[in-house]
Amino acid sequence: MKKRLEEILEKVYSGKLVPAKAIELLEGYPYCDLDFAKVDHHREVAKGTPEVVFGLGKTPDQIARISREILGKGSNLLVTRVEPAAWAKIRAKLPGAAYNEAARTVSRIQSPPPAGRGTVVVLTAGTSDIPVAEEAAVTSEILGNATERIYDVGVAGLHRLLGQYERLRQARVIIAVAGMEGALPSVVAGLVRVPVVAVPTSVGYGASFNGLAALLAMLNSCPGGVAVVNIDNGFGAAFLASQINHL
Amino acid sequence: MKKRLEEILEKVYSGKLVPAKAIELLEGYPYCDLDFAKVDHHREVAKGTPEVVFGLGKTPDQIARISREILGKGSNLLVTRVEPAAWAKIRAKLPGAAYNEAARTVSRIQSPPPAGRGTVVVLTAGTSDIPVAEEAAVTSEILGNATERIYDVGVAGLHRLLGQYERLRQARVIIAVAGMEGALPSVVAGLVRVPVVAVPTSVGYGASFNGLAALLAMLNSCPGGVAVVNIDNGFGAAFLASQINHL
Amino acid sequence: MKKRLEEILEKVYSGKLVPAKAIELLEGYPYCDLDFAKVDHHREVAKGTPEVVFGLGKTPDQIARISREILGKGSNLLVTRVEPAAWAKIRAKLPGAAYNEAARTVSRIQSPPPAGRGTVVVLTAGTSDIPVAEEAAVTSEILGNATERIYDVGVAGLHRLLGQYERLRQARVIIAVAGMEGALPSVVAGLVRVPVVAVPTSVGYGASFNGLAALLAMLNSCPGGVAVVNIDNGFGAAFLASQINHL
Amino acid sequence: MKKRLEEILEKVYSGKLVPAKAIELLEGYPYCDLDFAKVDHHREVAKGTPEVVFGLGKTPDQIARISREILGKGSNLLVTRVEPAAWAKIRAKLPGAAYNEAARTVSRIQSPPPAGRGTVVVLTAGTSDIPVAEEAAVTSEILGNATERIYDVGVAGLHRLLGQYERLRQARVIIAVAGMEGALPSVVAGLVRVPVVAVPTSVGYGASFNGLAALLAMLNSCPGGVAVVNIDNGFGAAFLASQINHL
Amino acid sequence: MKKRLEEILEKVYSGKLVPAKAIELLEGYPYCDLDFAKVDHHREVAKGTPEVVFGLGKTPDQIARISREILGKGSNLLVTRVEPAAWAKIRAKLPGAAYNEAARTVSRIQSPPPAGRGTVVVLTAGTSDIPVAEEAAVTSEILGNATERIYDVGVAGLHRLLGQYERLRQARVIIAVAGMEGALPSVVAGLVRVPVVAVPTSVGYGASFNGLAALLAMLNSCPGGVAVVNIDNGFGAAFLASQINHL
Amino acid sequence: MKKRLEEILEKVYSGKLVPAKAIELLEGYPYCDLDFAKVDHHREVAKGTPEVVFGLGKTPDQIARISREILGKGSNLLVTRVEPAAWAKIRAKLPGAAYNEAARTVSRIQSPPPAGRGTVVVLTAGTSDIPVAEEAAVTSEILGNATERIYDVGVAGLHRLLGQYERLRQARVIIAVAGMEGALPSVVAGLVRVPVVAVPTSVGYGASFNGLAALLAMLNSCPGGVAVVNIDNGFGAAFLASQINHL
Amino acid sequence: MKKRLEEILEKVYSGKLVPAKAIELLEGYPYCDLDFAKVDHHREVAKGTPEVVFGLGKTPDQIARISREILGKGSNLLVTRVEPAAWAKIRAKLPGAAYNEAARTVSRIQSPPPAGRGTVVVLTAGTSDIPVAEEAAVTSEILGNATERIYDVGVAGLHRLLGQYERLRQARVIIAVAGMEGALPSVVAGLVRVPVVAVPTSVGYGASFNGLAALLAMLNSCPGGVAVVNIDNGFGAAFLASQINHL
Amino acid sequence: MKKRLEEILEKVYSGKLVPAKAIELLEGYPYCDLDFAKVDHHREVAKGTPEVVFGLGKTPDQIARISREILGKGSNLLVTRVEPAAWAKIRAKLPGAAYNEAARTVSRIQSPPPAGRGTVVVLTAGTSDIPVAEEAAVTSEILGNATERIYDVGVAGLHRLLGQYERLRQARVIIAVAGMEGALPSVVAGLVRVPVVAVPTSVGYGASFNGLAALLAMLNSCPGGVAVVNIDNGFGAAFLASQINHL
Repeated sequence: MKKRLEEILEKVYSGKLVPAKAIELLEGYPYCDLDFAKVDHHREVAKGTPEVVFGLGKTPDQIARISREILGKGSNLLVTRVEPAAWAKIRAKLPGAAYNEAARTVSRIQSPPPAGRGTVVVLTAGTSDIPVAEEAAVTSEILGNATERIYDVGVAGLHRLLGQYERLRQARVIIAVAGMEGALPSVVAGLVRVPVVAVPTSVGYGASFNGLAALLAMLNSCPGGVAVVNIDNGFGAAFLASQINHL
Repeated sequence: MKKRLEEILEKVYSGKLVPAKAIELLEGYPYCDLDFAKVDHHREVAKGTPEVVFGLGKTPDQIARISREILGKGSNLLVTRVEPAAWAKIRAKLPGAAYNEAARTVSRIQSPPPAGRGTVVVLTAGTSDIPVAEEAAVTSEILGNATERIYDVGVAGLHRLLGQYERLRQARVIIAVAGMEGALPSVVAGLVRVPVVAVPTSVGYGASFNGLAALLAMLNSCPGGVAVVNIDNGFGAAFLASQINHL
Repeated sequence: MKKRLEEILEKVYSGKLVPAKAIELLEGYPYCDLDFAKVDHHREVAKGTPEVVFGLGKTPDQIARISREILGKGSNLLVTRVEPAAWAKIRAKLPGAAYNEAARTVSRIQSPPPAGRGTVVVLTAGTSDIPVAEEAAVTSEILGNATERIYDVGVAGLHRLLGQYERLRQARVIIAVAGMEGALPSVVAGLVRVPVVAVPTSVGYGASFNGLAALLAMLNSCPGGVAVVNIDNGFGAAFLASQINHL
Repeated sequence: MKKRLEEILEKVYSGKLVPAKAIELLEGYPYCDLDFAKVDHHREVAKGTPEVVFGLGKTPDQIARISREILGKGSNLLVTRVEPAAWAKIRAKLPGAAYNEAARTVSRIQSPPPAGRGTVVVLTAGTSDIPVAEEAAVTSEILGNATERIYDVGVAGLHRLLGQYERLRQARVIIAVAGMEGALPSVVAGLVRVPVVAVPTSVGYGASFNGLAALLAMLNSCPGGVAVVNIDNGFGAAFLASQINHL
Repeated sequence: MKKRLEEILEKVYSGKLVPAKAIELLEGYPYCDLDFAKVDHHREVAKGTPEVVFGLGKTPDQIARISREILGKGSNLLVTRVEPAAWAKIRAKLPGAAYNEAARTVSRIQSPPPAGRGTVVVLTAGTSDIPVAEEAAVTSEILGNATERIYDVGVAGLHRLLGQYERLRQARVIIAVAGMEGALPSVVAGLVRVPVVAVPTSVGYGASFNGLAALLAMLNSCPGGVAVVNIDNGFGAAFLASQINHL
Repeated sequence: MKKRLEEILEKVYSGKLVPAKAIELLEGYPYCDLDFAKVDHHREVAKGTPEVVFGLGKTPDQIARISREILGKGSNLLVTRVEPAAWAKIRAKLPGAAYNEAARTVSRIQSPPPAGRGTVVVLTAGTSDIPVAEEAAVTSEILGNATERIYDVGVAGLHRLLGQYERLRQARVIIAVAGMEGALPSVVAGLVRVPVVAVPTSVGYGASFNGLAALLAMLNSCPGGVAVVNIDNGFGAAFLASQINHL
Repeated sequence: MKKRLEEILEKVYSGKLVPAKAIELLEGYPYCDLDFAKVDHHREVAKGTPEVVFGLGKTPDQIARISREILGKGSNLLVTRVEPAAWAKIRAKLPGAAYNEAARTVSRIQSPPPAGRGTVVVLTAGTSDIPVAEEAAVTSEILGNATERIYDVGVAGLHRLLGQYERLRQARVIIAVAGMEGALPSVVAGLVRVPVVAVPTSVGYGASFNGLAALLAMLNSCPGGVAVVNIDNGFGAAFLASQINHL
Repeated sequence: MKKRLEEILEKVYSGKLVPAKAIELLEGYPYCDLDFAKVDHHREVAKGTPEVVFGLGKTPDQIARISREILGKGSNLLVTRVEPAAWAKIRAKLPGAAYNEAARTVSRIQSPPPAGRGTVVVLTAGTSDIPVAEEAAVTSEILGNATERIYDVGVAGLHRLLGQYERLRQARVIIAVAGMEGALPSVVAGLVRVPVVAVPTSVGYGASFNGLAALLAMLNSCPGGVAVVNIDNGFGAAFLASQINHL
């Protein structure tokens, strides 16, 4: 933007452009302020950063069309919340793309994403939390992070969690995924000194109120260092973790 | 902004300013884009528009100081949510200002506000809703609207409301203030063809849940044309009504 | 019970029964206390009172079997919440029974129920409230009440409700069925001096929260004389109205 | 109204009144429709019916002034929710009025109210529910109902409730007041065949959520015949019970 | 109404009608009061105003029958919430009607609606909000308003919204449709000085609680001038916007 | 009861009592059914069981009077929720009674309560949970249970909890008191095989919603064996624990 | 653990093991601390204790595979929440396993579980609560408890409950299962002196809010001795009851 | 820990220590397992890390005593939620400590904390959010982070926020504090690529439900990279931000 402004000013200075005309030209560009123009392009991030499509509520056709557009530009692709039935309909249209059934993601890497600095560890309290955790793990990987999965280490069997203590300590960011009472992130945050991204899941029934119980528990975590995201938001957790891991 | 840009471009054109210097100058102004600059000043509305202070949570001293600043600029002043005890402490510091005890507002008009096109009618369901209604009415007046009050015409005594039918029909905008079951805006919207701004109040007890019952009722109004604002938000209702009335 | 106790005591007095044996006999009757025994039989109400089956969650087979038992005893029958598909499966097994498609009720009267003293009027705010209202109306009828239906007289078109004013005034009990903002019972209770049984319905969307908005509105009714029942509980409203109408 | 219309039409027919003038005359009466006019006067209830003032949120002065007006008209007076401190300030201004400290009511009967047909029985689950129950009982009495109090018969000690079985059975309407789990109305409705007006109270703590637990329990009462009113609404319960008892 | 009353009175005056007969005639009209009669006909708005049918919960047959009635009277027709499957069944019965698949509306204009004074601009935060926005836009159009759509300008990419600043400024009313965090109306209301009708949508998952998060955000909008309607209520938003635009 | 019935029947049998008189006698006893009579006296528990007074909402005078009555009967006394100010007023009237400031209890043991079989261990997550825990511990003791306190062992510092592992394992019942995220009972239940009574507390702020977060977490405890009581209900937890410990 | 540490230290002392090697050996055991090691094996409970699988959300294949593993180890098996359709697919793979259709459980006992000390009585308020109660009863049995079922004894027909008084009194633990108003546990806890495990069910509609009403009622139980578990959690109730019954 | 174990084993190996004695020594350390021992000391973070006291609910005396202990150890001190009245009572006892009236914190740095790598920027939407923001800012500083405050840049005046765009872009972590509609973190996260810690505040009234509206908005943030903490939890936000900034 700044460059173009310079060009215009140069033309004005050299008398090739009258001020009134210059104003007209500048008005044609919607965000021509000098500083704020950066906003317009701030998403031009490093080569390899994927474009992400939220698949929920989109038809298989819409997903296929958008994905092909993205891939056509040479970008990496991540589509979340794709049901197996949808994948069956679109796989032929997306050669080279991979489907992760647990995570319900479609992805294809065309150029390596910029690497994160440490390891992102993804924990789950139970086995039912795995789909959300896989969404997080796949996202974390495609965003360029070394990613480890440690599943089914909920507080009901504390020794299983403590048995992974060394691995927890070596993480740069931890994503803790839990439904029901949602106690895992609190316990983990009491054990480590790195940020814990807490993902409540809708796993449970009755007074779990579709994840509300876990969400409230995580927001009230007694140990500090817990960053809460929306219920079942595996993608968002990984996006945040990756941001931290790329700092 | 545009004018300043013209000046700069004129100087560049006339060779008085080199492009590099022009860019520097432009960078000094935080929002120098041609269009968006209007944002910066869009609140420079017509002479007479009051500046409003939300008094809740401010000390009497803070209210007095801010008010004096506003009045010192020659602006009209409206302070909402001022308790009588606070007013007692600051009245000596704000000569010429008036206190409306029911509305808990402090106000002073120094130049007449731009006039609205029709009448804003403020209704209440009961007498306990009057403080919120008065906040609305006082706000409506200081914003330049002819304002009528019709109080205590709730649905428990439908004939009282219907007895005011002619006055309702002559309104350009109606503000309907009600707590408890919050039925008044629905009934009124069924009778008229102008917008009804619905203000739920926290009047009630038990299952009114501090105005939640009335709020939900108003959001579910069966007749169309009901614009809902926050619980007890008399000021907001009048601000919206005044916007509509000045169109 | 008392009579049987007298008989036993007489036999004891006359030496025909030893105390130990008398105690045994009395123990055979689970609730043999003098007063409370009435509880045991208090449901032996007047001939013609129907037995009611809550159909929701029962299989067609279960409904048919229970219904045949009831009819076999000569009782009147009312089954609520029977879907058309269920009726199709059981109609052949229940000769003489009638299905009301709007109310989703199956009923058969074998002996006339005891008559209520006045008229029960059933109102709805909209047409979508009719299934609940029909459940109420059918129940009211089978419980022996003269029952009038006045539908689609919600507060959005107040003149329609007022046009029924005479009929409202002649009711002994009014059942007012409304979803969305649930204002109808409040408005009606302001017009009449008889009890208004308020039935919130789950009709609506968004912030109706499946009838919560209407429920809260009705509980907060400003005019007195409003008796609230559960959301969509047409049967319960009519049961209560009938109790009142039979006093 | 109809009669007046006849007179006007007669005058028009006989040529004593021109149509234009007739219209003017008719317009002078705000609700001159033939049927609906009754609305205007439908509150002209029988001599002795009290006028009721909701004391909450009114200053002692306001209460005193309104009460004197009502008494000056010869009406019976009932003021609810009057704190002892308020009563101390106004008692001198209201000679002849009585204050019920438990019920927090001020009342004075100047002419006997129309008598209800049976007895209204007021129950409480615990002793903390008594203020709400007393508001109901005092209201019931001033509305002309024979009123019996049976307090502290909650489900924690079922034998106490069952010990009152005969008295329950002789009621025409029962008001059951309960906080905490709010089970009393359900249990009572299973024992009797008259309407049970259920009043949830805010008695409790924690998960009683200020009466919400009791309210929900009552709305979900398994036995029929339960009419629910707002939390702590002793007055409303008695108003409804009295309406039923005067049918 | 008044006219008809005049006619009747003229006939009485001229002796063509006896008073008793006149009363009968008048009684035939349920709401014959002079003032209130306007209620009866207040919906006889200008030629071209459509009649609206809420399609949700109606069978295709019901929709077709009602629609044909409306069209038979020469009125314009708008049916909302019609699923494609329903449309497929009724399209043959409604020649000349158009189906908008995104908006799920059926409509037919037979005479031009009265024109609004300015432009209604409909915004969405995301693409998933489009169905609600289309319901609003189609409604706005059929109610006679010049209507512009600006979609997918949510706060996640502020530059896209700011790029539309000029178009926003030229609106007379803005409808801002947003799910998830529901921030769009607040941001827009901070940029313009016309009323912003805020429509929360149920777009989102987890702690969006089906639109509750967006609804609360909009009710708490810090900038004034925001009029909130029910979740997903595109029709209601347009109805309100059109009322404002026709003032 | 049975015995008395036998006596009466014997007298009837021996001719000393006529049946009519026997019935009268039996009627004098409100719950004379053979089985159910036990209800009437089922609270005649073992000597030493205290009588408990819920102090909240009672005046110091009421507390003193009730307490003296209980002590006068020779019973043990426990009063909960007594503020220090109240204690100051009544201590002179209750010689021999002890006040626990942390627990806010007044108690006096006059005869030793029946002893529980094992140890009740009372845990808290933090120091702010101690008042509720003390109410539990004092109650547990006065009900005859060996009681151990282990405070401030929340999940933020897991090593503190694990350091108490041996003591936990030797408990017969554990009471786990926690506010905020309420994770303690889940973690403890994963470590032991005895019942864990979970007491959510209102400790916390914001999204703890006065203990709701902790309550929901506890209800959703993944490990089994968790018995939840009301928020802040230290007394109820100890009552339940004592029942279990006396089995 | 301690023993093994001794052995290692002895070897070191006797020079058979160098320190570095000793450390390696110790590191091989993940939780080799002296006390806490017990955690690792605390689930090695008595022979006969079943392993439990939560079937909800697992595919028939997953259930079959896990079940076969458990049975292969000679353990007893309990799978909860298995729909009939799932059972149909897996029954051939699980010879000897029994399916309880009401409870939706699959179970097989290969060695008798350790016996509880008394009887667990399972109550339901209505017939719709039976599936949850059966899950509890089947669980209770497979955990080794003498288990009695008493169904359909809700408070709507108190005499039915009281008729079971003797059986209630002979229970060591009672599980009370109820939806709607959830009053059963309170009433039962007022009648007995043993722990009552309260299970709210999602039976109901409208303001039952999927079991919330019953849950809140149970948490607010006025009589003590009520242990609440999650909505519909029949398994958890029986697990807790069995723990108590095995103390 | 490992080192100490080595020493002990060396002594055993060299015969200086008998195994029995070695076990005793090891038992003296509560958590002597090889790996997990680190837990015990993991809070022995770098010199300069402050110890934090949550002042809410503590008496001035308690605060003073704890603070003196901490300072006596040479640690840095931070006490949050200290009201001015409390500070007045304790300031004399804490020489060298500073009180921040806006933040309500007491702090004293005795040795410089370890420095964070970048800048933490703290934003507020309004002036009423400043106390929470100050708690965050003071915490951030005492934890060793370069900290910038940018207050009153809410979405109502977007130009004020955009005017700070450069400063936002230079932050390593941003803390965005907002009440009411809580839109600020979403808007900011759309502008930057660093983590945004979102702090909902209880600023607002009515449907803000004490910060719930803002909390839900933040959890539903459309742009990624938003880490939510509890309502009003300024300390927690800064603790998390500092963890990220020290990675």
